[in-house]
Order: sequence, then C-alpha cells, then structure tokens
Amino acid sequence: MNYVLDHVGIAVRSIDDTLPFYLTVLKGTLEDRYTSDAPGVEVHVAVVRTEDKVIELLEPTNKNSPMARFIKQRGKGVHHLAYRVDNLDDAIYEARKEGVRFLDDTRRVNARGRRLIYLNPASTNGTLIEFCDYVKS
Amino acid sequence: MNYVLDHVGIAVRSIDDTLPFYLTVLKGTLEDRYTSDAPGVEVHVAVVRTEDKVIELLEPTNKNSPMARFIKQRGKGVHHLAYRVDNLDDAIYEARKEGVRFLDDTRRVNARGRRLIYLNPASTNGTLIEFCDYVKS
Repeated sequence: MNYVLDHVGIAVRSIDDTLPFYLTVLKGTLEDRYTSDAPGVEVHVAVVRTEDKVIELLEPTNKNSPMARFIKQRGKGVHHLAYRVDNLDDAIYEARKEGVRFLDDTRRVNARGRRLIYLNPASTNGTLIEFCDYVKS
Repeated sequence: MNYVLDHVGIAVRSIDDTLPFYLTVLKGTLEDRYTSDAPGVEVHVAVVRTEDKVIELLEPTNKNSPMARFIKQRGKGVHHLAYRVDNLDDAIYEARKEGVRFLDDTRRVNARGRRLIYLNPASTNGTLIEFCDYVKS
C-alpha cells in the first residue's frame, strides 16, 4: 500500500480573500470551484494546484458547518492532510489492524469522484488525516 | 520561480508518542532526528518521509518555546507548510513586490542546510507558510 500526499485542506473564512495569495505569490492555478452541501460537510471548495501538489481552500457555507466550528476553535489554517491510497477499503482494513479509529464509517464520494474517510485525530496524535482514493469511471 | 511543497511541519507534544503512527500506519521512514536549540526555535525534530513528501514532527524543547505556545493556542496538528523555491532571496523579493510580509528578516540556516523564512500569516490569510532553499555545499 502506498500513501501519497494527495492534497492539503485549508480552512478559510473567505475563498475570495485567500485565492489571490495562492494564485499570485505561489503561482498556483485554479483547477475547480464547487460547493458540497451534504449535511456535515457544508463547504465551498477551491482547488488550487501549486507545482506538484493540490491545496483545497475550504470555506464554511454557514455558521453551523463543521468548518465554521473548526475555525472558531482553532483559527484559520491547515484543516487536514489527505493521503491517496491504492484502495481505500484495504487501507482502512490495514489501519484498523494497527488500532486506528475513523471519524465515521461512511466512505463518502465527493464532487470530484474522490472516495474519502477521516481518521480519528486521537489515532494520529492530533492531526486530522484523510485517506482517499479515486473512483474509476 | 517554482514553488514545490517541501515538507509539512506538525506540532506535537511528544515525538515518541507520534512516530509510531507515521512509521507503522503511513509506512514512513525516519530520516533524521535532531534538536534545534537556537533561541526562538527550541524544538526537537523528527524527519519522516512518507512516499513522496516529508513530514517534520516538531516537539517543543521547553514550555516557553514558540512551538509550546502554538500548541497551547491552537492545539496539536499542522504547524506550517514549507515551499521549496529555486532561490530564497529572489522568492522573498518577488513576494514583497506582491505585498507579502515576513515574520522576520533573518534567513536562518537549519541543521539540515536548509535556508528558510516564514511568511507573516496576515499575508497568507491565516496559514503559516515557510519559503526555503538548500544551501549548496
């Protein structure tokens, strides 16, 4: 099983206020913008590629969204690191054997065809980490 | 100028408690451990390579270290994203032209021959970002 850093998710109050830094200073390119309205997600997303990696800017759609609570508790900044695995089910199985717990047992598919799950930060010593793979079409 | 994600710095209370996750679950390899005792740095560092990228686990050496204050204010988790540039002086010059400010004007060289500077989070909309290059020996 390979664990490749897929993207870094960054919690922001406003994508419009944050994008210029990534596009102008880090010379990124805006690959996509979309909104995830699913309950418990509720974020506007901007996908920015900077050289070899992707940054996702994550803006809460409402003040009760988990992202809004994250910003209130911890401030703006990095929200999660996502590792792309060969097969999400196998990665979950292997991590569970090592005692890792997950935030829930749903393997959501996001707007970009990415299947994902979050590890419980208690299992990573504090950092929110996502495992993901990409659904073959 | 290219901006390549060089590493992700993660604030932890204990490297020993955190390493097993990165080595066992993410199949990382421990490349280095060292201590930076310079005033204003004061961290123990573990350098872990996971597939194509490096994670630096950063443990405060004392309770007044900036890393200890970060953990107290924001909790454990991602501390900074570091972008490797072709030439640090040129990157600073170009960013300043875009209005970016830096946390200080020292271009420190760390224990691994990396020259680095932090951008003021006010210029990135909240995320602590490092620019770095590697000193040619």
